[in-house]
Amino acid sequence: MSARLDAQMAFLMEADRLKAITRATRNHDGRRENSAEHSWHLALFALVLEEHAPEPVDIHRVIRMLLIHDLVEIDAGDAPIYGKTDAAAQAADERAAAERLFGLLPQAQGAELLKLWEEFEANETPDARFAKSLDRFQPPNLNLLNGGGSWTEYNVTQDLFEKRVGTKVARGAPALWAWLQPRVAAFFGKA
Amino acid sequence: MSARLDAQMAFLMEADRLKAITRATRNHDGRRENSAEHSWHLALFALVLEEHAPEPVDIHRVIRMLLIHDLVEIDAGDAPIYGKTDAAAQAADERAAAERLFGLLPQAQGAELLKLWEEFEANETPDARFAKSLDRFQPPNLNLLNGGGSWTEYNVTQDLFEKRVGTKVARGAPALWAWLQPRVAAFFGKA
Repeated sequence: MSARLDAQMAFLMEADRLKAITRATRNHDGRRENSAEHSWHLALFALVLEEHAPEPVDIHRVIRMLLIHDLVEIDAGDAPIYGKTDAAAQAADERAAAERLFGLLPQAQGAELLKLWEEFEANETPDARFAKSLDRFQPPNLNLLNGGGSWTEYNVTQDLFEKRVGTKVARGAPALWAWLQPRVAAFFGKA
Repeated sequence: MSARLDAQMAFLMEADRLKAITRATRNHDGRRENSAEHSWHLALFALVLEEHAPEPVDIHRVIRMLLIHDLVEIDAGDAPIYGKTDAAAQAADERAAAERLFGLLPQAQGAELLKLWEEFEANETPDARFAKSLDRFQPPNLNLLNGGGSWTEYNVTQDLFEKRVGTKVARGAPALWAWLQPRVAAFFGKA
């Protein structure tokens, strides 16, 4: 029992490093968001916005996915959506990170969380699709809140936003996209 | 539907402010933890350490509690456990904060989360007791990770730690206390 808890605590203390991974998105106060507080914010989005999922989801699985979805960034770093990323190299780094990090846990527990992370990444089940949609829906809302944020820094146009983010939110969470789209259009109309 | 989502988004954007509330505890890298990343870390503790609850808990309710438990600090601030706090004034501030913040949500949803926060605060149900125990168990683990942290800053002795924190973790999560206690004793023996 103590060996199990040793392993679980090693994982939880290693997870603390996610608080030092910064993202392109900025919070309400202009500070760059880190991936730990981002994961908290997304879990809260899931808790509050469950009713807007376009198909039945197990919201607790969605929340679990969101709590663990970015842990791989501890080793692989965050790949900004408007940045230049070698997608295949990033995917390989994230895969290795997932195996190392979830491998810190007792075997069956680590395997279960690895599987949940793979499900999120594959973006094929209703739970994963809703979780991924929230992950894409939150940053534009922060940009609207802080006056442009990563859109301004990356010279993002409304067209590019709709291609990279909008189409995906529209597919995975149409009700949220219907709410967001006119707000984004108004921002770019003004910007 | 749109009015509901307006209200939910107002709540979620106001919640962003929790990322700017700093705590006495420091992360692995010495930076002061904020209450949003703290809430994420605790939710991950619950997800991983469920089996160590001393009585049956609904881990998803525990996770929901932990995701919302500190939101009141947006208005009331964080009261460090070793600081000097007027407990009655802090409780009144937190109560007012809970009513304002959860009051941003659609009525029934806000009432449900307010009730969940009250349950956490009352610390009487198995779910609340386990959630509160994790909230007390995580900071000493960060202090051990970063070499003393808030213990050093607040001149905390092993006696004071055991009185303020240890007895509570021992009661709410005895297995976690059995694991932590010798590690804390070794730290103070060396410190």
